[in-house]
Amino acid sequence: MHRTHTCGELTIKNLGEEVLLSGWVQKSRDLGGTTFIDVRDRYGLTQLVVNTDDEATLRAKVKDLGREFVIKVKGTVLERSNKNPKIPTGEIEIKVSDLEILNEAKLPPFMIEDETDGGDELRMKYRYLDLRRNPVRNNLILRHKMAQEIRKYLDAQDFLEVETPVLIKSTPEGARDFVVPSRMNPGEFYALPQSPQTFKQLLMVSGFDRYFQIVKCFRDEDLRADRQPEFTQIDCEMAFIEQEDVLNIFEGLTRHMFKTVKGLEFENFPRMQYADAMKYYGSDKPDIRFEMKFVELNNVVKGQGFGVFDNAELVVGINATGAASYTRKQIDELTDFVKRPQIGATGLIYMRHNEDGSLKSSVDKFYNEEQLQKWSAAFNTAPGDLVLILTGATDKVRKQLNELRLEMGNRLGLRDKNQFAPLWVVDFPLLEWDEESGRYHAMHHPFTSPKPEDIDLLDSKPGEVRANAYDLVINGTEIGGGSIRIHDKKLQSTMFKHLGFTEEEAQKQFGFLLEAFEYGAPPHGGIAFGFDRLVSIFAGLDSIRDVIAFPKNNSGRDVMIDSPSTIDDKQKKELFIETTVEQ
Amino acid sequence: MHRTHTCGELTIKNLGEEVLLSGWVQKSRDLGGTTFIDVRDRYGLTQLVVNTDDEATLRAKVKDLGREFVIKVKGTVLERSNKNPKIPTGEIEIKVSDLEILNEAKLPPFMIEDETDGGDELRMKYRYLDLRRNPVRNNLILRHKMAQEIRKYLDAQDFLEVETPVLIKSTPEGARDFVVPSRMNPGEFYALPQSPQTFKQLLMVSGFDRYFQIVKCFRDEDLRADRQPEFTQIDCEMAFIEQEDVLNIFEGLTRHMFKTVKGLEFENFPRMQYADAMKYYGSDKPDIRFEMKFVELNNVVKGQGFGVFDNAELVVGINATGAASYTRKQIDELTDFVKRPQIGATGLIYMRHNEDGSLKSSVDKFYNEEQLQKWSAAFNTAPGDLVLILTGATDKVRKQLNELRLEMGNRLGLRDKNQFAPLWVVDFPLLEWDEESGRYHAMHHPFTSPKPEDIDLLDSKPGEVRANAYDLVINGTEIGGGSIRIHDKKLQSTMFKHLGFTEEEAQKQFGFLLEAFEYGAPPHGGIAFGFDRLVSIFAGLDSIRDVIAFPKNNSGRDVMIDSPSTIDDKQKKELFIETTVEQ
Repeated sequence: MHRTHTCGELTIKNLGEEVLLSGWVQKSRDLGGTTFIDVRDRYGLTQLVVNTDDEATLRAKVKDLGREFVIKVKGTVLERSNKNPKIPTGEIEIKVSDLEILNEAKLPPFMIEDETDGGDELRMKYRYLDLRRNPVRNNLILRHKMAQEIRKYLDAQDFLEVETPVLIKSTPEGARDFVVPSRMNPGEFYALPQSPQTFKQLLMVSGFDRYFQIVKCFRDEDLRADRQPEFTQIDCEMAFIEQEDVLNIFEGLTRHMFKTVKGLEFENFPRMQYADAMKYYGSDKPDIRFEMKFVELNNVVKGQGFGVFDNAELVVGINATGAASYTRKQIDELTDFVKRPQIGATGLIYMRHNEDGSLKSSVDKFYNEEQLQKWSAAFNTAPGDLVLILTGATDKVRKQLNELRLEMGNRLGLRDKNQFAPLWVVDFPLLEWDEESGRYHAMHHPFTSPKPEDIDLLDSKPGEVRANAYDLVINGTEIGGGSIRIHDKKLQSTMFKHLGFTEEEAQKQFGFLLEAFEYGAPPHGGIAFGFDRLVSIFAGLDSIRDVIAFPKNNSGRDVMIDSPSTIDDKQKKELFIETTVEQ
Repeated sequence: MHRTHTCGELTIKNLGEEVLLSGWVQKSRDLGGTTFIDVRDRYGLTQLVVNTDDEATLRAKVKDLGREFVIKVKGTVLERSNKNPKIPTGEIEIKVSDLEILNEAKLPPFMIEDETDGGDELRMKYRYLDLRRNPVRNNLILRHKMAQEIRKYLDAQDFLEVETPVLIKSTPEGARDFVVPSRMNPGEFYALPQSPQTFKQLLMVSGFDRYFQIVKCFRDEDLRADRQPEFTQIDCEMAFIEQEDVLNIFEGLTRHMFKTVKGLEFENFPRMQYADAMKYYGSDKPDIRFEMKFVELNNVVKGQGFGVFDNAELVVGINATGAASYTRKQIDELTDFVKRPQIGATGLIYMRHNEDGSLKSSVDKFYNEEQLQKWSAAFNTAPGDLVLILTGATDKVRKQLNELRLEMGNRLGLRDKNQFAPLWVVDFPLLEWDEESGRYHAMHHPFTSPKPEDIDLLDSKPGEVRANAYDLVINGTEIGGGSIRIHDKKLQSTMFKHLGFTEEEAQKQFGFLLEAFEYGAPPHGGIAFGFDRLVSIFAGLDSIRDVIAFPKNNSGRDVMIDSPSTIDDKQKKELFIETTVEQ
């Protein structure tokens, strides 16, 4: 027997009990002959004590203990003289009567503490040691808890979790597929799913009515901080519903999560049209923890002979409330920020609303006090405010101002990670123009249904057709997205045509789905949440990497197990493949 | 709005209510001008009625309805004159006031009924239609429920579900890996996990203490009825435990499942040593729904001049209670059965214990009544019993007699699918001799710990070393298996040596695990259940295929989506691979 209790369990109620504990040596310190050892497991930390009057063999063993040794101790629960109110076991300690070293440990390459001295790369290589640290483990405990709550909620709402296959079929649309050569079908490949989209729609055709799955998906894309080649989705679909039903059920799910996991209650989530999100925030995923909405100034500023404004398609700005005290240097920093190549603005124009009530802009040459009063009115400024203005082509300048708005949000401390601002963005366009291929692409995917009232525009103004599509955004991060699907074969064929598929191509790729639609497809729709992102938002993290037990680095490598790796020729031969690079 | 109620919900309590229902037309029949339509969804079936006094437009629509059309109806709940007590909605019907055809349906290629006329292949191709059938859908509902209950139980026992990666590293040991070429790491491959074995052990090193996961695993093996290239495991691991703890926790899980899902209560599961399982059942997964234990006869039958017995390493038989009335033809069938190439016995010897008390054997030439009395005593026969005896080399004849025992179990109706007989098989050998490679293989896997008292035999008699390994067997099917792992680096190295790994090979394949063991590995062990098999046993099915939503056929193909398939040259080029067969 290794333990009677965990290291997080014993309190003053257990005084006098003889107990067995097992765990890792967090630290050991000698104070004038008395040794205090902190022993740690997943559940907590307990203080052990060995005195000068203990047996010599016990004292010798204690002397040998290094950090992260695995030990088993027998002892009696005593009240501590020097209590630690910060931990649940802080009122007691264990007077050790026997100690066994279950396993020794080399000195870890970094400190197993909440704040560690290990760099990213080292911690990735020794991920199993990094996972011993409380913050990392707590992220995964949070993840577990969230997954349990999601299942509990959806089960109660009659959703069935159905496992869809991992070895499926490659489709040239969308991101790159990971593929798997088939040994039994020479020259052919499976693909790993980018999402179970077609399978969940087939389940609706099958009458499953309400489906969900917490499921691994795969995209062979170039990686960034918040992207991993394998990631986890909460994938859901419902039949006989309308958009409103989907929003209600999954707003309910999100509220359930906030309540059970974070103890937070929410009013109805606000909803914003895609067009408004772009107009007022320059983004389809506005961070509405703070206001600072875009104000368009074309009507206010044009025609005063200032070419930068007069020639711009759009003049648009934000009121950075309370930032009028920004120094010249701070404003130069902002100018540098918007001029960075990844943002690409040509300059930044500003107006201060000084504490004394006066208005001062960087373009006073062109605009006098009276005219600036109009600016002030447009932005509804008060003394102490700073207005920041960008100009340019509409789509571009909105994106730029979105970046500046978020930067100002950060600088002004308006993006508190412990505050959560969920938002539905609705009425997405059905199609978006792709310059490269010179044709329209589906903004969500080819199965998204247009709004019935917009179907007539499909031929005349395809770019203006709105979709029954929606995203859930929290704190400026897209957490989930979905749509009502097309369930009519004819409309689906029309969509494929608009997306530039020939009938043959559509048949080859989605033939089985189109055929399924001929056997009685119900109206249906759904949503998919990025589970990694949802957990990372709940954990207050910027990257999804720390909510994944064994993540890959930016080259898609697992540096701990050193994967991917070469395989032997026999394996390749069996799979009917050769590699085109020298090993 | 598509419905106010589901098709399984309305009862006599709803009389007079105006309701909306949506679903599929199960059937429609006209009885003297009155049309009765059964509308179906996942939740049930409701009868609709349209009379001759209804509007002509409604009657016309009803006339057009075909099987599997998707409809929405408005109507009033009425009491039925002709009640159907077999279904929950059987006391009511809906007097239709309005009907909308949401989608038409072609005539399905087979009947959507509990008993269908569709062959296997057709049903696989139109799996989405097969999934509409109650028995198939019910299997998946059972699967969902079981997964929920597993998670509930393990969560309550402090297990954390941790997702381990799907893109991992290929290891030449074990079954064949599916591999995934890496675009970012030219010439290198990921492998899909055959199990998360090493990751779960790393999680124990990380102090996760109790881990589980319901997880997809992959084996590129030749397929049989109960094998699929992708399958689902309930994968579990615990630290600071001994074998007894693992057995208790997972016996608890299994009882929880039986209780919550099947309403069945169980006493403690019996336990059987591997050696006894082989001796008395000729199998490491005995079906103990029925007795019919092996009786070894060497001491009883040898030395009477009957060469078949005298020259055999083992003479062993079973008592097929109550089968003495078997005709000559039936016994010939059994002889043919054991002589089939896949079983390979040379013949079958029998003895009848006739109803009149006389004994009659097929070798009466060599054995007289007095000697047969000894047989009878050995088998404890009674009038009406039939003893069946096989001879040969010990291992071989045991396997053959196992097949015969199961066959007799079937013939005598002793293998009721609604009866469940769980059993722990324990004390497996650590190693098994592999003729082909001329060396020992790990019977479970290389991380399985030998029994401490047997470690000394590792050098002298490796074949006799027992492992801390165990299997859970239900009704003769292995449902799960596991072991206590080695947590000591030195012992692990010794094991690798015995398994014929050079130090370099061990390092290359498992270096990260060996290294992890140097940083404080706790004692740990675990188990993995085959989830598909567990569900199929609970569902009373022989094959796992019917508890998988979208299974593959025996060539590893998904005939519904026609996968695997060829991929284009651009894709291959990006992945640095070529195929070695003409497309």
